[in-house]
Amino acid sequence: MSKDLSISVLMDFYGELLTEKQKDTLDLYYNSDLSLAEIAQDIDISRQGVRDFIKRGEKQLAEFEEKLGMVSKYNSIGRELSLLYDEIVAVKGIDGAKKAEILKRINSIKSSL
Amino acid sequence: MSKDLSISVLMDFYGELLTEKQKDTLDLYYNSDLSLAEIAQDIDISRQGVRDFIKRGEKQLAEFEEKLGMVSKYNSIGRELSLLYDEIVAVKGIDGAKKAEILKRINSIKSSL
Repeated sequence: MSKDLSISVLMDFYGELLTEKQKDTLDLYYNSDLSLAEIAQDIDISRQGVRDFIKRGEKQLAEFEEKLGMVSKYNSIGRELSLLYDEIVAVKGIDGAKKAEILKRINSIKSSL
Repeated sequence: MSKDLSISVLMDFYGELLTEKQKDTLDLYYNSDLSLAEIAQDIDISRQGVRDFIKRGEKQLAEFEEKLGMVSKYNSIGRELSLLYDEIVAVKGIDGAKKAEILKRINSIKSSL
Protein backbone atom coordinates (compact mmCIF):
# COMPACT_ATOMS: atom_id res chain seq x y z
CA MET A 1 0.00 0.00 0.00
CA SER A 2 1.71 3.19 -1.13
CA LYS A 3 0.78 6.47 0.53
CA ASP A 4 -1.12 8.62 -1.92
CA LEU A 5 -0.55 12.30 -1.22
CA SER A 6 -3.83 13.28 -2.84
CA ILE A 7 -5.61 11.50 0.01
CA SER A 8 -4.39 14.26 2.34
CA VAL A 9 -6.06 16.78 0.06
CA LEU A 10 -9.29 14.77 -0.02
CA MET A 11 -9.11 14.60 3.78
CA ASP A 12 -8.90 18.39 3.98
CA PHE A 13 -12.08 18.67 1.94
CA TYR A 14 -14.17 15.72 3.06
CA GLY A 15 -12.65 14.55 6.33
CA GLU A 16 -15.62 15.91 8.29
CA LEU A 17 -17.93 13.49 6.49
CA LEU A 18 -16.05 10.46 7.82
CA THR A 19 -16.61 8.91 11.25
CA GLU A 20 -14.33 10.20 13.99
CA LYS A 21 -12.42 6.92 14.08
CA GLN A 22 -11.92 6.79 10.31
CA LYS A 23 -10.76 10.37 10.27
CA ASP A 24 -8.29 9.74 13.09
CA THR A 25 -6.89 6.62 11.45
CA LEU A 26 -6.42 8.26 8.05
CA ASP A 27 -4.94 11.27 9.77
CA LEU A 28 -2.37 9.13 11.63
CA TYR A 29 -1.49 7.34 8.42
CA TYR A 30 -1.40 10.22 5.95
CA ASN A 31 -0.68 13.31 7.99
CA SER A 32 1.34 12.01 10.93
CA ASP A 33 2.97 9.40 8.70
CA LEU A 34 2.64 6.51 11.15
CA SER A 35 3.01 2.95 9.84
CA LEU A 36 0.14 0.45 9.82
CA ALA A 37 1.82 -1.40 12.69
CA GLU A 38 2.13 1.76 14.77
CA ILE A 39 -1.51 2.67 14.21
CA ALA A 40 -2.57 -0.90 15.00
CA GLN A 41 -0.80 -0.62 18.34
CA ASP A 42 -2.27 2.84 19.00
CA ILE A 43 -5.89 1.94 18.43
CA ASP A 44 -5.58 -1.71 19.47
CA ILE A 45 -6.73 -3.53 16.33
CA SER A 46 -4.81 -5.82 13.95
CA ARG A 47 -2.53 -4.46 11.26
CA GLN A 48 -4.90 -5.95 8.67
CA GLY A 49 -7.78 -4.25 10.45
CA VAL A 50 -6.06 -0.89 10.12
CA ARG A 51 -5.36 -1.57 6.45
CA ASP A 52 -9.05 -2.38 5.79
CA PHE A 53 -10.11 0.70 7.70
CA ILE A 54 -7.85 2.93 5.64
CA LYS A 55 -8.89 1.33 2.36
CA ARG A 56 -12.56 1.86 3.21
CA GLY A 57 -11.91 5.48 4.17
CA GLU A 58 -10.00 6.12 0.95
CA LYS A 59 -12.84 4.65 -1.07
CA GLN A 60 -15.36 6.90 0.65
CA LEU A 61 -13.21 9.98 0.11
CA ALA A 62 -12.95 9.12 -3.59
CA GLU A 63 -16.73 8.71 -3.75
CA PHE A 64 -17.28 12.11 -2.13
CA GLU A 65 -15.02 13.69 -4.72
CA GLU A 66 -16.84 11.84 -7.50
CA LYS A 67 -20.18 13.16 -6.21
CA LEU A 68 -19.19 16.69 -5.17
CA GLY A 69 -16.04 17.40 -7.20
CA MET A 70 -14.83 20.10 -4.77
CA VAL A 71 -11.12 19.35 -5.22
CA SER A 72 -11.35 19.41 -8.98
CA LYS A 73 -13.41 22.61 -8.91
CA TYR A 74 -11.07 24.40 -6.49
CA ASN A 75 -8.05 23.35 -8.53
CA SER A 76 -9.68 24.71 -11.65
CA ILE A 77 -10.54 28.03 -9.95
CA GLY A 78 -6.97 28.20 -8.65
CA ARG A 79 -5.59 27.77 -12.18
CA GLU A 80 -7.93 30.45 -13.53
CA LEU A 81 -6.85 32.84 -10.76
CA SER A 82 -3.19 32.18 -11.61
CA LEU A 83 -3.86 33.08 -15.24
CA LEU A 84 -5.67 36.22 -14.11
CA TYR A 85 -2.73 37.09 -11.86
CA ASP A 86 -0.25 36.71 -14.70
CA GLU A 87 -2.48 38.76 -16.97
CA ILE A 88 -2.57 41.62 -14.46
CA VAL A 89 1.20 41.44 -13.91
CA ALA A 90 1.71 41.88 -17.66
CA VAL A 91 -0.71 44.79 -18.00
CA LYS A 92 0.92 48.10 -18.77
CA GLY A 93 -0.25 51.55 -17.75
CA ILE A 94 -1.57 50.82 -14.24
CA ASP A 95 -0.15 52.69 -11.30
CA GLY A 96 2.24 50.38 -9.42
CA ALA A 97 0.56 50.63 -6.03
CA LYS A 98 -2.83 49.93 -7.60
CA LYS A 99 -1.44 46.91 -9.41
CA ALA A 100 0.07 45.58 -6.18
CA GLU A 101 -3.28 46.01 -4.43
CA ILE A 102 -5.10 44.08 -7.15
CA LEU A 103 -2.52 41.28 -7.13
CA LYS A 104 -2.80 41.05 -3.35
CA ARG A 105 -6.56 40.63 -3.64
CA ILE A 106 -6.15 37.82 -6.17
CA ASN A 107 -3.66 36.07 -3.91
CA SER A 108 -6.00 36.42 -0.98
CA ILE A 109 -8.79 34.73 -2.98
CA LYS A 110 -6.39 31.95 -4.02
CA SER A 111 -5.29 31.32 -0.48
CA SER A 112 -8.91 31.10 0.68
CA LEU A 113 -9.52 28.17 -1.69
CA MET B 1 -43.86 24.41 6.50
CA SER B 2 -42.63 27.35 4.43
CA LYS B 3 -40.44 26.70 1.42
CA ASP B 4 -36.94 27.89 2.11
CA LEU B 5 -35.23 28.99 -1.09
CA SER B 6 -31.78 28.36 0.33
CA ILE B 7 -32.64 24.64 0.34
CA SER B 8 -32.50 24.72 -3.48
CA VAL B 9 -28.98 26.07 -3.22
CA LEU B 10 -27.98 23.39 -0.70
CA MET B 11 -29.49 20.81 -3.08
CA ASP B 12 -27.27 22.07 -5.90
CA PHE B 13 -24.21 21.54 -3.74
CA TYR B 14 -25.03 18.45 -1.69
CA GLY B 15 -27.93 16.77 -3.48
CA GLU B 16 -25.67 13.96 -4.67
CA LEU B 17 -25.00 12.93 -1.08
CA LEU B 18 -28.68 12.21 -0.45
CA THR B 19 -30.42 8.97 -1.38
CA GLU B 20 -32.10 8.93 -4.78
CA LYS B 21 -35.56 9.02 -3.19
CA GLN B 22 -34.73 11.91 -0.86
CA LYS B 23 -33.24 13.86 -3.70
CA ASP B 24 -36.28 13.27 -5.88
CA THR B 25 -38.70 14.28 -3.12
CA LEU B 26 -36.85 17.48 -2.26
CA ASP B 27 -36.53 18.23 -5.95
CA LEU B 28 -40.29 17.87 -6.49
CA TYR B 29 -40.97 20.08 -3.49
CA TYR B 30 -38.37 22.80 -3.96
CA ASN B 31 -37.57 22.88 -7.65
CA SER B 32 -40.80 21.68 -9.29
CA ASP B 33 -42.85 23.41 -6.58
CA LEU B 34 -45.31 20.53 -6.01
CA SER B 35 -47.38 20.50 -2.82
CA LEU B 36 -46.96 17.85 -0.13
CA ALA B 37 -50.28 16.31 -1.23
CA GLU B 38 -49.17 16.12 -4.87
CA ILE B 39 -45.87 14.50 -3.93
CA ALA B 40 -47.68 12.08 -1.60
CA GLN B 41 -49.86 10.98 -4.51
CA ASP B 42 -46.85 10.75 -6.86
CA ILE B 43 -44.72 8.52 -4.66
CA ASP B 44 -47.60 6.80 -2.88
CA ILE B 45 -46.92 7.63 0.76
CA SER B 46 -48.90 9.74 3.24
CA ARG B 47 -48.74 13.52 3.26
CA GLN B 48 -47.18 13.30 6.73
CA GLY B 49 -44.66 10.79 5.35
CA VAL B 50 -43.63 13.26 2.67
CA ARG B 51 -43.32 16.01 5.25
CA ASP B 52 -41.06 13.85 7.45
CA PHE B 53 -39.00 12.87 4.45
CA ILE B 54 -38.45 16.48 3.45
CA LYS B 55 -37.66 17.58 7.01
CA ARG B 56 -35.05 14.82 7.32
CA GLY B 57 -33.51 15.75 3.96
CA GLU B 58 -33.36 19.44 4.93
CA LYS B 59 -31.64 18.52 8.19
CA GLN B 60 -29.04 16.46 6.37
CA LEU B 61 -28.38 19.24 3.85
CA ALA B 62 -27.87 21.68 6.72
CA GLU B 63 -25.46 19.24 8.37
CA PHE B 64 -23.45 18.88 5.16
CA GLU B 65 -23.15 22.65 4.97
CA GLU B 66 -22.14 22.81 8.62
CA LYS B 67 -19.43 20.21 8.00
CA LEU B 68 -18.18 21.29 4.56
CA GLY B 69 -19.25 24.94 4.29
CA MET B 70 -19.15 24.91 0.49
CA VAL B 71 -22.05 27.35 0.03
CA SER B 72 -20.60 29.83 2.47
CA LYS B 73 -17.14 29.52 0.90
CA TYR B 74 -18.43 29.93 -2.66
CA ASN B 75 -20.49 32.95 -1.64
CA SER B 76 -17.45 34.49 -0.05
CA ILE B 77 -15.30 33.86 -3.15
CA GLY B 78 -18.08 35.32 -5.28
CA ARG B 79 -18.13 38.50 -3.20
CA GLU B 80 -14.33 38.82 -3.41
CA LEU B 81 -14.47 38.39 -7.18
CA SER B 82 -17.13 41.11 -7.41
CA LEU B 83 -14.86 43.48 -5.47
CA LEU B 84 -11.98 42.57 -7.77
CA TYR B 85 -14.19 43.19 -10.79
CA ASP B 86 -15.19 46.64 -9.53
CA GLU B 87 -11.57 47.43 -8.74
CA ILE B 88 -10.50 46.58 -12.30
CA VAL B 89 -13.39 48.57 -13.79
CA ALA B 90 -12.20 51.63 -11.86
CA VAL B 91 -8.55 51.26 -12.84
CA LYS B 92 -7.24 53.95 -15.17
CA GLY B 93 -4.57 53.59 -17.79
CA ILE B 94 -5.32 50.08 -19.10
CA ASP B 95 -6.06 49.60 -22.76
CA GLY B 96 -9.83 49.09 -23.19
CA ALA B 97 -9.62 45.74 -24.99
CA LYS B 98 -7.24 44.41 -22.35
CA LYS B 99 -9.54 45.56 -19.57
CA ALA B 100 -12.51 43.86 -21.24
CA GLU B 101 -10.53 40.64 -21.54
CA ILE B 102 -9.62 40.70 -17.84
CA LEU B 103 -13.20 41.43 -16.78
CA LYS B 104 -14.41 38.57 -18.96
CA ARG B 105 -12.02 36.21 -17.22
CA ILE B 106 -13.26 37.30 -13.80
CA ASN B 107 -16.88 36.76 -14.88
CA SER B 108 -16.02 33.36 -16.21
CA ILE B 109 -14.52 32.37 -12.84
CA LYS B 110 -17.60 33.72 -11.05
CA SER B 111 -19.97 31.79 -13.25
CA SER B 112 -18.00 28.58 -12.63
CA LEU B 113 -18.69 28.84 -8.89
